[in-house]
Amino acid sequence: MSGTLYGVGLGPGDPELMTVRASRLISAARVVAYPSLAGAESFARSIAAALIPGGAREIVMDIPMTTAREPAQTAYDRGAEEISTVLEGGVDVVCLCEGDPFFYGSFMYLFARLSERFAVEVVPGVTSMTACAAVAGLPLAARTGGVSIVPGTLARESLAARLAGGETVVLMKVGRHLEKIRAAVSEAGREAGAVYVERATLAEERVLPLAEAPEEAPYFSMIIVPGARDPWL
Amino acid sequence: MSGTLYGVGLGPGDPELMTVRASRLISAARVVAYPSLAGAESFARSIAAALIPGGAREIVMDIPMTTAREPAQTAYDRGAEEISTVLEGGVDVVCLCEGDPFFYGSFMYLFARLSERFAVEVVPGVTSMTACAAVAGLPLAARTGGVSIVPGTLARESLAARLAGGETVVLMKVGRHLEKIRAAVSEAGREAGAVYVERATLAEERVLPLAEAPEEAPYFSMIIVPGARDPWL
Repeated sequence: MSGTLYGVGLGPGDPELMTVRASRLISAARVVAYPSLAGAESFARSIAAALIPGGAREIVMDIPMTTAREPAQTAYDRGAEEISTVLEGGVDVVCLCEGDPFFYGSFMYLFARLSERFAVEVVPGVTSMTACAAVAGLPLAARTGGVSIVPGTLARESLAARLAGGETVVLMKVGRHLEKIRAAVSEAGREAGAVYVERATLAEERVLPLAEAPEEAPYFSMIIVPGARDPWL
Repeated sequence: MSGTLYGVGLGPGDPELMTVRASRLISAARVVAYPSLAGAESFARSIAAALIPGGAREIVMDIPMTTAREPAQTAYDRGAEEISTVLEGGVDVVCLCEGDPFFYGSFMYLFARLSERFAVEVVPGVTSMTACAAVAGLPLAARTGGVSIVPGTLARESLAARLAGGETVVLMKVGRHLEKIRAAVSEAGREAGAVYVERATLAEERVLPLAEAPEEAPYFSMIIVPGARDPWL
């Protein structure tokens, strides 16, 4: 019988924000797999580091930093092949995923390659989105309010269109798009109350009004533009 | 010195999807607080039940089922008052919140009443949204895709407007709005691929194509309308 592939969400960074299930699966893993961006230390692995058993085999998928389909897909092809060999041998593989596996996670590329041939269980995790809201003291949505989640990589006109409504807008993947985003938020008249959060729940966490955000933002940063105040508040 | 109020996300329902931090805080609690809807058993309490220490004091906020501002706010006023008396006595209070405290959670009403007078820590949790995506095997967002989160309570025209774009739409709080939502999704030509999920991660969980959803949906149900397929897949 083949092994099971677990896609395990690790939460936003603080190891205590891992779920009990994630913690249990990692602690018992014989094989873990995780992505590493362009040879850098894997953020996913660093969250789980204290739990990975000493003798566990580690499958590292070195994902190049690129917006082109290839060669990232070649890296996932290779990772999926290595993982499938382990699964065929009857051994489970625990794939470590920052945040939640299906919320801007690269696990979906493994899921697409392997879920028809093997049993796959996705273990959801705390997203960076709600972690940022928690540390900023800013509720995302109440009762009849909506939330629009927008990658900061979009063109300025697309950002403007999402900001035109009155609902909460969460801008993900800020990084080098900060100036463009700030201009769009300001033009929409929504800078007041907007919050910039960097590395939420980690020791280096920063929470600032958007107007005071640094000129250089890391990839792991986010902007929350609050929606209309809930009339119940 | 006053106690700290912890707003603790419990995740979607399976107690194993609680965070390690939530589990630790509840296990050590001297006082827990939680909402109960219209006198029914509290869902939040049921998720945490096995961890609540035997001698802990329990503050129950009985929230009436209503769309009117009062008398729900009176119930939060009373709960906040009872909690503040405990905090003033130097004892911490652990408030149990389904899902994530700031993602459609009622904790924000306690936060608004108490965060200026007391230390409050919000512990984020796994949202029902990513839990539903996990059990449905449906990634919510990849790379440059957006997600629109929409309460099913909105009017049909508002639903139609959110469904007009090509991105992933998550319809929360389906319940008695199912037929209206189904009509709006169908009219937008997006029924294919849309998934209905009921009580995700609980024993009674159901995952169905939207077209096969039951006529009566419980409050804890959700519909995911997937966005355009990621070109990397």
